[in-house]
Amino acid sequence: MSTPMTPPKPHLWLVGAGPGDPDLLTLKGAKVLAQAQLVLYDSLVHRDILDLAHPNATLICVGKRAGQTSTPQVLIHDWIGRGAQQGLRIVRLKGGDPMVFGRAGEELQFAEQLSLGWTYVPGISCGTSLAGLAGIPLTLRGVASSAWLGTATGQDGRLTADLLAALNTSSTLVVFMGRRRIRDIAQHLVQLGKSDTPIAVVSEGSLAQQQCVIHSAKVWLTSEVESLPDPALLVIGEVVHHQLTPTTTNLRSITPSFTHEYEVPHLPETRKSHVQRLRRV
Amino acid sequence: MSTPMTPPKPHLWLVGAGPGDPDLLTLKGAKVLAQAQLVLYDSLVHRDILDLAHPNATLICVGKRAGQTSTPQVLIHDWIGRGAQQGLRIVRLKGGDPMVFGRAGEELQFAEQLSLGWTYVPGISCGTSLAGLAGIPLTLRGVASSAWLGTATGQDGRLTADLLAALNTSSTLVVFMGRRRIRDIAQHLVQLGKSDTPIAVVSEGSLAQQQCVIHSAKVWLTSEVESLPDPALLVIGEVVHHQLTPTTTNLRSITPSFTHEYEVPHLPETRKSHVQRLRRV
Repeated sequence: MSTPMTPPKPHLWLVGAGPGDPDLLTLKGAKVLAQAQLVLYDSLVHRDILDLAHPNATLICVGKRAGQTSTPQVLIHDWIGRGAQQGLRIVRLKGGDPMVFGRAGEELQFAEQLSLGWTYVPGISCGTSLAGLAGIPLTLRGVASSAWLGTATGQDGRLTADLLAALNTSSTLVVFMGRRRIRDIAQHLVQLGKSDTPIAVVSEGSLAQQQCVIHSAKVWLTSEVESLPDPALLVIGEVVHHQLTPTTTNLRSITPSFTHEYEVPHLPETRKSHVQRLRRV
Repeated sequence: MSTPMTPPKPHLWLVGAGPGDPDLLTLKGAKVLAQAQLVLYDSLVHRDILDLAHPNATLICVGKRAGQTSTPQVLIHDWIGRGAQQGLRIVRLKGGDPMVFGRAGEELQFAEQLSLGWTYVPGISCGTSLAGLAGIPLTLRGVASSAWLGTATGQDGRLTADLLAALNTSSTLVVFMGRRRIRDIAQHLVQLGKSDTPIAVVSEGSLAQQQCVIHSAKVWLTSEVESLPDPALLVIGEVVHHQLTPTTTNLRSITPSFTHEYEVPHLPETRKSHVQRLRRV
């Protein structure tokens, strides 16, 4: 005769899936998914990440699909509530980082109303990674010492006051969901006497089909932006002039075992004080 | 008789190690490390991450140690040059994200001078993750719709113009290396009539010993900050008032296999149009 089981304890993990490339999920994200029972995921999450979920987990898409309205927040709350009631390990999986424009705060407030324990597992934010993946350092000594991350448009449909203030500084601006407002932003830069400021549009960042189109503000006033695919993000500021050229490197093409010998580099004696060598040298 | 080998092709991977917790490394970061031959790492990188490097890799610490000056940038460049000359797979491993205050741009410019191919593997930035790990959403509808990430002090030792501009907005401010300037920042907020604005100091974020201390600007004017451990980061803005309480959850305490049955939640018929169920339901 089996002893009565302790009732399962429900828990909510809020997990960031990163900007797109499934390998940009964290180790912690992968571990949590492998133990999930209910996964509520957004549409932009890569299918290969969903494959990391436990085979018995229930996977439900609660994101916006092309041509459809987005899932009402109340319905996501409803799913969280049902999962909690049944004592499940729930994973809420969002693209990028859930705390950066992910409405995580609202879902966590709801979890706390239910007395549901929760854990945040950060993801790579598009805001800090997509510029770099297009070869543009987000900050660079002597060029930009800060970055501003925001959306283009407020609830009133106008460019936000925070964005207008940031355009007046030397920060690098990363604008989420700003592609359709690029001419308004460019117009504002021209009015500020910054018509040469470069603006990069990074589309489908981190994926094989990533595109990056760069023009100055004055050129964007009359340039075509409609055909660039979503998701897209704008990077604005002098750092864009310092774009470098990353190499496309498919990890699978690297020999997995070391078949050639190599010499361990030696430091000149005078420099050794700066260097600490660890275990395996 | 063996045929002559193709000379090995050197490559530089610039990898973000994340904010501290080794499980916050990305899957891609782990894969790259497993194939590295030379790893140049900063001091703040967790030892468990170094354990993921290939056992034959040479590991060299090029970071700042307590009580020492930081490794001169030219020495790091020297190591990169030596590795390139020997055709090595070089990993430059930095805390957080290398493109966010990591001087990545300078190292990449150097790599391009050498015609050395490079790949950026983003890491979880402290700037987007540490607020959330302390229960503070970085953005929250109706409270803050943007975030500003920057350092407190410029090369002239004064608070930066970008920081002063950002304090005038409703952005959430995340200030790197700002602990010792907290009173100057608080003083500035008081002068702006924002003496009730909360400032959180998050120390050793993402690690088991993480601490978060919160006061309003006017209270920080006379509060002790010197004893809070580094690395520390400031989070400033109304979102700090909306702090929630994350649960400490040790992943290892979760049963790795599912030993209890659970019911798959069912949706009411009328809501099914919002939901797409995938494969494993």
